This record gives sequence, C-alpha cells and structure tokens, in this order.
Amino acid sequence: MSKISINADRLLGRLRELGEIGRDPSGHLTRLAASDADKLGRDTFIRWVQTAGLDVRVDRLGNIFGIWGELSPDRPGPLLVGSHIDTVIDAGKLDGCYGVLAGLEVIQTLMESGKVPDFPIAVAAFTNEEGVRFAPDMMGSAVFAGALSADAALGAFDTNGSTLGEELERIGYAGAEPVGFFRPRAYLELHIEQGPVLEREGVDIGVVEGVQGISWQRITVEGQANHAGTTPMSMRRDAGVAAARITTFLDELANAGAGALVATVGCINFSPNAVNVVPGKVSLTVDMRSPDLTILKSAETRLAGYLDRLSGQTGCAISSERLAMTDPVLFDKDLVRTIERVAAARGLSSRRMTSGAGHDAQLLADIAPTAMIFVPSVGGISHSPKEHTPDDHLVHGANVLLETVQSLSLA
Amino acid sequence: MSKISINADRLLGRLRELGEIGRDPSGHLTRLAASDADKLGRDTFIRWVQTAGLDVRVDRLGNIFGIWGELSPDRPGPLLVGSHIDTVIDAGKLDGCYGVLAGLEVIQTLMESGKVPDFPIAVAAFTNEEGVRFAPDMMGSAVFAGALSADAALGAFDTNGSTLGEELERIGYAGAEPVGFFRPRAYLELHIEQGPVLEREGVDIGVVEGVQGISWQRITVEGQANHAGTTPMSMRRDAGVAAARITTFLDELANAGAGALVATVGCINFSPNAVNVVPGKVSLTVDMRSPDLTILKSAETRLAGYLDRLSGQTGCAISSERLAMTDPVLFDKDLVRTIERVAAARGLSSRRMTSGAGHDAQLLADIAPTAMIFVPSVGGISHSPKEHTPDDHLVHGANVLLETVQSLSLA
Repeated sequence: MSKISINADRLLGRLRELGEIGRDPSGHLTRLAASDADKLGRDTFIRWVQTAGLDVRVDRLGNIFGIWGELSPDRPGPLLVGSHIDTVIDAGKLDGCYGVLAGLEVIQTLMESGKVPDFPIAVAAFTNEEGVRFAPDMMGSAVFAGALSADAALGAFDTNGSTLGEELERIGYAGAEPVGFFRPRAYLELHIEQGPVLEREGVDIGVVEGVQGISWQRITVEGQANHAGTTPMSMRRDAGVAAARITTFLDELANAGAGALVATVGCINFSPNAVNVVPGKVSLTVDMRSPDLTILKSAETRLAGYLDRLSGQTGCAISSERLAMTDPVLFDKDLVRTIERVAAARGLSSRRMTSGAGHDAQLLADIAPTAMIFVPSVGGISHSPKEHTPDDHLVHGANVLLETVQSLSLA
Repeated sequence: MSKISINADRLLGRLRELGEIGRDPSGHLTRLAASDADKLGRDTFIRWVQTAGLDVRVDRLGNIFGIWGELSPDRPGPLLVGSHIDTVIDAGKLDGCYGVLAGLEVIQTLMESGKVPDFPIAVAAFTNEEGVRFAPDMMGSAVFAGALSADAALGAFDTNGSTLGEELERIGYAGAEPVGFFRPRAYLELHIEQGPVLEREGVDIGVVEGVQGISWQRITVEGQANHAGTTPMSMRRDAGVAAARITTFLDELANAGAGALVATVGCINFSPNAVNVVPGKVSLTVDMRSPDLTILKSAETRLAGYLDRLSGQTGCAISSERLAMTDPVLFDKDLVRTIERVAAARGLSSRRMTSGAGHDAQLLADIAPTAMIFVPSVGGISHSPKEHTPDDHLVHGANVLLETVQSLSLA
C-alpha cells in the first residue's frame, strides 16, 4: 500500500476560515448550536463537502453527513469519521472543527488519490455537542445513537424560550432524513486532547481507549452561623471547616488513585460569607472521574462514608445530591491497536490514554466499534481563545486518521 | 450597707420602649448612627435622663451624658457607666441599649434611695459604636478616649456621601461640649455576652477581664485553572485544595490553643467557581482573636510559615494582606475582683471571661480603670432579631452593676 498524506495547506486553511465565522467585533469566536453563526459555519462546511464531491444529507436534528459512496439498506453502513462544529462562548477554533474538517480532508485525499474503498466512507458534523445553548451536551450524537429521543432533543429550550427544533427550522437545518438513517460500521473521531498530558510528555499521538465516567454531586453542609469572636472553638459547628475537610479528603483519595481517579471541588459557596461570622452553611460541588466504573463507584462509596463520619465528628448536617452520572466508555480494542500501529508506521510517538472530557464518540460507541485519536493541546488549554495545537501536530493527527481509514477500508 | 435593687419594671419597660423606636413596617429594628431613627432614640433617652433629674450634656460628637452631681475641674471626674444606643441593621433591642438604660436605672435607683455618693456618677451613650453607617466602629468612645481625632470622626462619610458631622447637625446632636470634657475616674459597661458561654455553662454573670485582640487577613492563593476531567492530579495547581489546607491548619492551630485562640475562615471566593474547572484563584479571610498578644502574634507567625511551606508543596503563589489588627485590652484587676465579689454577695454565679466582640469599654480602658459585666445571650445570638436574654438575667446584671457602683462610690 503506497503512503499518501493529506493536503496540509487545505486542512489548515479551512480550519482558519471556519475559525473566522462567528467572531464578534472584538474578536471573540462563538458559534452556539443553531444560531445564525452556526448556520454560516454549516453553510461553509457543506460548500466544502459539495466541492469534494460528497453527497450531503442532513437529518431532522441537523446532523450533517457528507457521504462518499452509495448507502444500501442491505449492507453494513459507512465507515464514519467526524465530530462537531458548534462551539462554546469565546472559543478556540480547533475543538470539534478539527475532527470534522480532518475527516473531510481524509475522504477528499482518498478520492483524489484514486483509491476505491470497499464500502462508503462518510464525515459527520453532529449538532450541539457543546450543550452551551441547549442541554444536554452531545445531543446530536446521542439521538443518532438512540440514547435520547429526537422529540426530547428538538423540544429542548434555550434561555430565551426557543426550542432547538424551532431554531433548526429557522436556520434551515431541520433536515429531511430521519435521525439514525444509517448505522455506521465503525466511528473514528480525531480531536485535540484538551488536557496537558501529551504536551508534557512530548508524545505526538494519543490513542484513546475510552472516556472517563463522571460523577457530579452537590454537597450541602449545615452547621451553625456564629460570631467569630465570641464563640469558643469547642462550641462551633463550622460548615466551612467541614467543607475544607471534604476537599482535602477528596484530594487525598484521588492522589492515592494512581492516575485512575481525578476529583475536583470546583465550586463552593459560604453563607453568610462574612469575615467575622463562622460559616453556617456551605455548598460545594464534587466532580469525580475515572475510566473504571468500579473505581468511580468505590470513590462515591468512600466519600459517602467519610461524610457520615464527618457529620458525627463535627455536628454538621451533611447531605449530597447527585447532579450527573455517566458510566465510563470503553472503545474498540482492535481500532485502538490499529491506530497505534499506524502511528508507529508513520514514525510518530503515541501513548494510550483515556479522555477526560466528553465527546460524540462515547455515544457512537454504543452502536459501532469506535475509537478516538488525540493530538497535543498547548498548556492543556481548551474552551478558550488560547486553545492551540501547532500545525505539524494537526497534520500528524490527520495523517494518522487517513491511514487508519485506509487500513480499515482498502483491501 | 442596706441592700437595694433596681426597679425591674422600669428598666424592662424602657428597654421595650426604646426597642420599638426605629422599627420598619415589617417589624425590623434599625437605628443607624445619626439617622432619623437614632434621633428619636436619643430624644427618648434624654427625656428619661431629664425625668430622673440628671444634668444632660452632649459633646461635639453627639456622645450623650447624664450626670448626677457637679463636675469640677479640680477633682477627678465622675464614675461613668454606659454603652451605646445605635444599632446594626435588623437588630435586637439589647445590644448597647441594655448597658445605657441599666446605667440610668442604677443612678435613678441610687438617687431614689436617698444615697449621696462621694463623687458624681454619670451615664454615657456613645455615638456610632456599631460602625455600620460610619467607619470605624466604637467611634464616639474612641474620640472621647483620645484614640481618634474629632475631625477625622466628624468627617467620616456614609455610602450616600454624607459626613457624620453633617448628619449630627441635621438631627440636632452636634453638641456644645468639647469631646473629652471630663475624664472619668472609672468606667463600667454592662452588656449581653453575644456569645454562648454563659448560657451553655449555666452561669449568671460574666466578669469580663479584657477584650480579645483581633487579627484580620485576606489570603490570596493563585494556582492554575484547568479542566477537571483532562488534568491529571499530578499536573494540577489547585488553589481550592490549598485554601482547604489553610482552613484545616487554622482550625487545628486554634483547637490546640486551649481556649486562648479562636480562628475563623469566614469568607471564601473561588474563581472561576465552576463544577468542572480546577479552581485557579481563591481568596479567603482569616479572623484570629486572642486575649494574649503573644499568642496572637505567634499564631500569625505560624500561619505565615505554613503559607510558605504550602506554597512550596503546591506550586501555588500565596500572598496575605492585613485587613485589621487590634491589640488585646486588659481591664482593671480591682474592678474585676469587685464585680466578682458583688455577684457572689447577691447569690449569683459568675465566671471570668474575655470579650470576643469589641466594646466602647476597650477604648475607655486607655484613660480610666475599666471593666465589663456580661449577662447570658440565649443561643449566643446577637446582631439579629433573635437576640434575647431572659428578664431575670437582665435584672440580675443591672443589680450587679448597681451594687458595684455603690461599693465604689458610697463610703
């Protein structure tokens, strides 16, 4: 099999061009799902898909597919590559768009090389991955994979009271295809890491074995607000001290987890929050993640046991409320090995890793063999204008995707 | 010396009546310094002082004195009793008013009993003890005791841009007397405890030996905001975890202090304060108090050392800023012993204690032998409509003040 490579200038040029759509006068990039800016981004993407000679299909939920080859109800569906092109507020230009435009680039390169794959290959841009305007996130892929009903998704409201369905109609992206009109034979998603590991370790390619499970809780500690001067230490029920003990407990629990658990207290609110008053009530959030469901459940159990003991020790009432729970997702072992082999064959260093953030791929994994490819994020920064990956890393990642697609689809 | 007692009905009735002045339509009591409500409270107090037959004097700062007997520049000044009648927002009716009205009651009782003291006795209502509208607090007593200039105090602005001087003129309480127009031979202040100790221990009378010194600091921890899912524990600089460690360090330091130190982290703010972001920056306040300056300074030094070590351990930049520092005040040992003896003679239990809150007495202690008498606060609650002391405790406290004044002034 002769080695081919993607057209780096075309890919990087399209990333730059799409990254200019949705910038406000002060230069901030925002393309929320089903907004006017999203429409302009979608129009541009579809123009490129058509230029490449692909068949464009849009489903009821606004998911866009560019398909090379004929879909047939009698045969397994296409090999699908993709991601999303909606953004957060004040975003970078790579999150999502990189996977979509590299997917298109891979197909276009294969078409131009004269290769004929054994089955259709398609690129997807899923609607509302970010979940900033309409909840939940990863919405388009969730409906596509049958994890959420189309009606529920289309009925989701934004803060202005508009539904996603109304907004898709308005921007002309309530498509004709039923959601899930084909079932992919496999799904590959290329993405920036959005974390610091690859850059810190000097590794070119992250071979993603799965997505961490996420447990979110809100803990409320009710003690007694008291005068900070007149209340002896022995007579206090200080909700702030209890919250501090919870925070250090979680930090120690996660640090003892040998990389298999992260835990974060990201949000805390004291009441009354005054310099001379012992905090009477504190609420804090706990974000725990692990690629291993057993470890995540065990961390939840250990936290619950600690809260019980702490309540007894401090006299504070401590309650917790679940905000979210998603199970870890394991990607396809064969695909992971293929990506690893392809990276090595191109002379790129790689490491296996788990995604700490959520991606469309975790929904697709329910209905098709799935894996992801990561490239380094400078400083681990994402969801920010500072999001950056050097061009050579972007090109390396797209070539790994290209060769993985080739090795799966060309005999 | 025959045992006399104060007129309980008169004292309790006046406390109730003054406690109705400054209530808004929904029942909340607020008489901020030099407000219209404060004017009405002052007018009422002066009417009672005049009814009792005392000479009313008001100084430039609005401090009100009711004097029994003739002041003479050739002799030591009067024995002074008092407190303040301004309140916080949504206050109880006892904080300050109890000491002022009990002081008047003591003098009126002595006058009615036909006793003739060896020297003048006076009751004081000091301006702006609470410091809610004009800073600093304990303002009237601070100027009276020479710790603050009259011009600085009168020039203090409220949030509407009015000065205390203008407001005192407006309500008719910019008096004729120079501030400090007499120097008291001693000062006694009766007050509710505003803490839980007396009630919890079932003790009738707190004999106050002094006022705690106060150290306020704001600590700022600067780490690195990161994605809570994609950032391994080993690559974090979590400002929230560092803040939690500071909080538990202070709690342990104070708990090891055997009652000689209290420490409170009352106020904390995380940035960005989001469930899925490692806190990048945290500010927190530290309130430390001790009756012993050596212990307070040592606690500050130990905290500073801990912050240095923690910064090294966590990679967070940690800085601290002093917000306030007042030295502890020691009251007069002879007065303390006298109060203790008087309480015992009236069959009341007592314990020595340190005031955790600030009072006019700590300023007066600079210019005259001074002590305070505390009565129990139900639940330790103050600065709240829930502030409460049972009537019998209020009467006991006033009688201890009466007999202390008697034993000091009547041969």
